Amino acid sequence: MHSTFAARAQKLQRSELAALFALAEEPGVISFAGGFPDPEWFLPEITEISDAIMRAGRGVALQYGPTPGFTTLREFMAARLTGQSMRCDATDVLITSGSLQGLDLVCKIFLEPGDVVVTEAPTYIGALQTFASYEADIVSVPIDAGGMRIELLESLLSDIRAGRQAEGRMPKFIYTIPSFQNPSGCTLSLERRPALLEFASRFGVPVVEDHAYAELRYEGADLPALKALDEEGIVIHLGTFSKIFSPGLRLGWMVGPRLVTEKAILFKQGTDQCSNSLGQIMALEYGKRGLIEKQIEVTVASLRRKKDETLKALRAHFGDTITRTIPEGGFYTWVTFPEGIDTVGLLPRAVKEHSVAYVAGPSFYADRSGKNQARICFSQPKVGEIDEGIRRLRKCFDTCKSR
Amino acid sequence: MHSTFAARAQKLQRSELAALFALAEEPGVISFAGGFPDPEWFLPEITEISDAIMRAGRGVALQYGPTPGFTTLREFMAARLTGQSMRCDATDVLITSGSLQGLDLVCKIFLEPGDVVVTEAPTYIGALQTFASYEADIVSVPIDAGGMRIELLESLLSDIRAGRQAEGRMPKFIYTIPSFQNPSGCTLSLERRPALLEFASRFGVPVVEDHAYAELRYEGADLPALKALDEEGIVIHLGTFSKIFSPGLRLGWMVGPRLVTEKAILFKQGTDQCSNSLGQIMALEYGKRGLIEKQIEVTVASLRRKKDETLKALRAHFGDTITRTIPEGGFYTWVTFPEGIDTVGLLPRAVKEHSVAYVAGPSFYADRSGKNQARICFSQPKVGEIDEGIRRLRKCFDTCKSR
Repeated sequence: MHSTFAARAQKLQRSELAALFALAEEPGVISFAGGFPDPEWFLPEITEISDAIMRAGRGVALQYGPTPGFTTLREFMAARLTGQSMRCDATDVLITSGSLQGLDLVCKIFLEPGDVVVTEAPTYIGALQTFASYEADIVSVPIDAGGMRIELLESLLSDIRAGRQAEGRMPKFIYTIPSFQNPSGCTLSLERRPALLEFASRFGVPVVEDHAYAELRYEGADLPALKALDEEGIVIHLGTFSKIFSPGLRLGWMVGPRLVTEKAILFKQGTDQCSNSLGQIMALEYGKRGLIEKQIEVTVASLRRKKDETLKALRAHFGDTITRTIPEGGFYTWVTFPEGIDTVGLLPRAVKEHSVAYVAGPSFYADRSGKNQARICFSQPKVGEIDEGIRRLRKCFDTCKSR
Repeated sequence: MHSTFAARAQKLQRSELAALFALAEEPGVISFAGGFPDPEWFLPEITEISDAIMRAGRGVALQYGPTPGFTTLREFMAARLTGQSMRCDATDVLITSGSLQGLDLVCKIFLEPGDVVVTEAPTYIGALQTFASYEADIVSVPIDAGGMRIELLESLLSDIRAGRQAEGRMPKFIYTIPSFQNPSGCTLSLERRPALLEFASRFGVPVVEDHAYAELRYEGADLPALKALDEEGIVIHLGTFSKIFSPGLRLGWMVGPRLVTEKAILFKQGTDQCSNSLGQIMALEYGKRGLIEKQIEVTVASLRRKKDETLKALRAHFGDTITRTIPEGGFYTWVTFPEGIDTVGLLPRAVKEHSVAYVAGPSFYADRSGKNQARICFSQPKVGEIDEGIRRLRKCFDTCKSR
């Protein structure tokens, strides 16, 4: 049967994500791997909400809903996003089954096999998998503490237009996670934001903004979403309820230029028909009662402590032998170990012999570079476990050097 | 931006499904349109279940789950399907976000633009949309009261192999809804089932079995699923919780040959990562308490009455001017009106002037034929409304003739 598979399936590689999810569940392992919220952030009020819905509104919650999402939830989200200076109304908002579905729909709209997509390097594993399933060619722009290095983006786009790179194939879109980026934790600076849009506009390349972590800021001043700066309608904005409510309900949203949202709705009809109704009604009620804001507050306070613990532990156990990023929000710090350290090779030993997990650097690069790097996600371990986890990591890495 | 869309998005047509879902909601309309379960079939026990889960297991229900689905639910489904003579174990079962996602994943595995897919004619609208989004060429085999006319399937496959049809492009798979087919209500007869598999095997074409309605039999003897007859591992079986539990939770399953399930899991990682956790745990608990069987019983008893009412009303109001199928299970009867009747043109008038809805025949054909046909779905209207609904339909169709 394999011989009749489409090229995208023939090329498909086993990925790290499944293994990663399995690792996170092993008992006794202190996991800096999966980007999971701490279940303690889920507010107990949700039980009362689900209970009320199932008692009074079961007929709707268990029934098919409209493909674009319930109008009430789209209106609520439009108002919330407008409050964050993003101009949109309910018809611009599509409720998706997680923000990754939003990205999948964007790919369905834009990508032919061999089309070029610009990403940050490193970037989100899930996005790389989605792009691979559409047989896209990834061209990357490095990041630094100020996010995507947009001077390199500009020269990349110039080079492509001049036919000096990517065989002159202009990218179909630029995929960026501007705030508290996954995996680096870095944030696109205020100055770079309009500049990125200016380049995108000049070269006629839409921007796909993944806003997953943007509301989880524990330090520094809030920055506007790219969508909030988008005068020309070139930004497709993807958001998720996973980090401000619940990932298990699989809900996100897309706000595109109208034409993109409309096409996405049509493709969603043939993909999963509609997002789950019960979850949508729960999310709406949670939002209307102000619990999203309350959960963000709880989450941010917890993340701030965990971030501090993590940076302190990295300092204590690794000193100057490594570099790491200093996030102002979100789940991640990105660690660069000395040359010669192989984070991929060390991972099985870290888990099996030292009961600590992380995600190895190469998973986040289309070209599998970043061998001596790793993503340390501090959202899941308890505050009291973090130092011990990083200590185990050091011990594991030391064993490697001595062998 | 439109000029940089992929071909599949450029070709994408506005579909009837969205309009159809909207129609079903208009107050006062008796809707024979959407294939929605009657909310009265949802058992009240579900409230107690969701309540218990949210109280005791919120941390898991609101958290990400594994991409293939929770192992407990996969094991439960494997046991349930084994009880229906389908050989499988938990690792063969992938939990999907509705059976349509299963179909989307199958398409992702098999289809390149221009690839050929065999369907029944008429067939499920959602499947036609999914196939269109993969730019497939549809080749259809007509149905009769005994389901797909497999003698025509055999000659079609022979013709293709001989280069006399579809430019000799062998189909990537045969998509069939063998029991209580959507939209026709017809069922593939016992004799035709092994014969279909024999042709598929002889021509080396996998079979995608959509089993959505198969457990909702109100008359006649149970028939084995194609998967249960599959000795060679050529059947990919798609099922759904939508008709035996709840469509609003968006859950289904795929049981494929191992290699297909594995690829589907990898693609699901880049599509929506995992199906919703709360829904999966609710489905498992519902199943373990025997409530799926209880809901099937309630559903079947209700459907039998509604089907009887519908056939009686069609007889009373249309007499011999039409033909209709006589389903032994499921939601649908398929009506053929006299030549000259245009069900597409009449639909807006039916809804707006006569407050009755159905789905026009051409929606179910890749070639948009079936102009004088319609799908009558009797799952949603109340028993007491059905006669009135069909009376309105007759009145509407009469007005047309007199104009």
